[in-house]
Amino acid sequence: MEDFKQALAKKAEEAEESLEMRFDRKFDAPDIIVSAMRYSLFAGGKRLRPVLMRETMRALGDDPEKIRSLADAIEMIHTYSLIHDDLPAMDDDDTRRGKPTNHIVYGEDTAVLAGDALLNLAMETALSGIPDQDPKNYIRAAQILFASSGVDGMIGGQTADTITDIADITEEKLNYIDEHKTGALLRASVLCAAVAAGAEEREIKALDTYAQSLGLAFQIVDDILDVEGDEKTLGKPVGSDEKNHKATYVSLFGIASSEERVQELKLNALGALGRIDGDTSFLEDLAEYVCDRDR
Amino acid sequence: MEDFKQALAKKAEEAEESLEMRFDRKFDAPDIIVSAMRYSLFAGGKRLRPVLMRETMRALGDDPEKIRSLADAIEMIHTYSLIHDDLPAMDDDDTRRGKPTNHIVYGEDTAVLAGDALLNLAMETALSGIPDQDPKNYIRAAQILFASSGVDGMIGGQTADTITDIADITEEKLNYIDEHKTGALLRASVLCAAVAAGAEEREIKALDTYAQSLGLAFQIVDDILDVEGDEKTLGKPVGSDEKNHKATYVSLFGIASSEERVQELKLNALGALGRIDGDTSFLEDLAEYVCDRDR
Repeated sequence: MEDFKQALAKKAEEAEESLEMRFDRKFDAPDIIVSAMRYSLFAGGKRLRPVLMRETMRALGDDPEKIRSLADAIEMIHTYSLIHDDLPAMDDDDTRRGKPTNHIVYGEDTAVLAGDALLNLAMETALSGIPDQDPKNYIRAAQILFASSGVDGMIGGQTADTITDIADITEEKLNYIDEHKTGALLRASVLCAAVAAGAEEREIKALDTYAQSLGLAFQIVDDILDVEGDEKTLGKPVGSDEKNHKATYVSLFGIASSEERVQELKLNALGALGRIDGDTSFLEDLAEYVCDRDR
Repeated sequence: MEDFKQALAKKAEEAEESLEMRFDRKFDAPDIIVSAMRYSLFAGGKRLRPVLMRETMRALGDDPEKIRSLADAIEMIHTYSLIHDDLPAMDDDDTRRGKPTNHIVYGEDTAVLAGDALLNLAMETALSGIPDQDPKNYIRAAQILFASSGVDGMIGGQTADTITDIADITEEKLNYIDEHKTGALLRASVLCAAVAAGAEEREIKALDTYAQSLGLAFQIVDDILDVEGDEKTLGKPVGSDEKNHKATYVSLFGIASSEERVQELKLNALGALGRIDGDTSFLEDLAEYVCDRDR
């Protein structure tokens, strides 16, 4: 596990450097908004989504440079969603990754605009990466990315999460939330790469199963950590789901059954990778890391 | 003027119908978020930006269908920016176009998400319109659109508007705000069409001058109306700039000088159209309408 953590950190650096390059230019904007965008984008995230996208490309034997713009874009989208999620009108969180949240540092008005600006920059970035030759697969991948982050994907999940009280939760509602709120973007990380690489339908299907299992496992582990985790390791207050009356897999089925489900999902993910021809060792390790991370 | 108002309303219907079609499908999302998106998108806006985009296409003798997706996208972007602008953390406005603002009806959390969802839908829509054959001009136009709505454009302008107090205003700061906050999208409406139509450089330049003059005039007239307008005609409270300590052309130079500047800009806009070969009569009438509308 320690070895993999180091390997993951190295891959994350690759994602980080690519993102840094997007800010290596003069902006025609007040300093505060660029500073607020950078503050959250470079707050020490694990870069799971861009890493997943690049490593799926590599597993398929293709060049991750082809989807560099989409990898940067997905991390911008993930970051904007966290900024808006932390707002007083939403989850009202004061810290994230051990640091004050964006609106605590820059004020609510600038935090709203910094989130908007990152989503918009994700679009600019995605558009900038359309290749001159054979753009079709790239464009399809970009369509998958923004369909996944939009109202039918992540935003739908955030809405359901916001409006669903712990008292009204059903398994169906919870599945919708988990599949959309965090699941959609993780799934898109893998699917964008598979489609951009022009993978065969059966490989796309297997990778989709991998990504869906990984995404759901990731969310359930997150819910377990919110109950059992350690504030220092997590970098955010524990018990925030209960405080916010959030329905989670844990609140519905309990810890033991949640842990069991995570292990099932792990086997599911690993089984799906078995149907891919390329070198899927990193994706396998990632599934194990996500399912067994500190708790 | 009355004739033109009717002509404009007819063009607005064309924009409206196209937007309606984007919602003629099942969404994989809770009803409330789709309802909140629709509430603001179909709140009776004048559709100035999509109309401007289509009519620029027509003036250049090209088919507006080519940029239908970008015309829909720009109105979604404009609408999301209004929803977020009205939030308590921003301008804190309770009414717009004579109706309660989005967060008053749906709550602040859903209003934030509805804004996000409209910006995201704008990108989905723009991507869906990339033609299979010769996509280059369309892609360049989409890039102009999202560069104009982002941190270097509209969002930069919103930020400057938010952080600049009336006491610290300078002509330079005010120009930045006006050129970016409302100017950038109006300019993009015209430029997107010119680029998508593959217009010659000298025509693009003339249309850009037209759009910049129109955009600035539009903003100054808005500022004048905020001081001198009638709440019922405007559909929003007058005096909101003063209430929000907003710096405007009027607060800096006074009404008389502002009216003079609008007339100068109108002549500028009309002069630029003189350098276009096509039928620019609608664009001319629009400039006169924007500069001389009720006050």
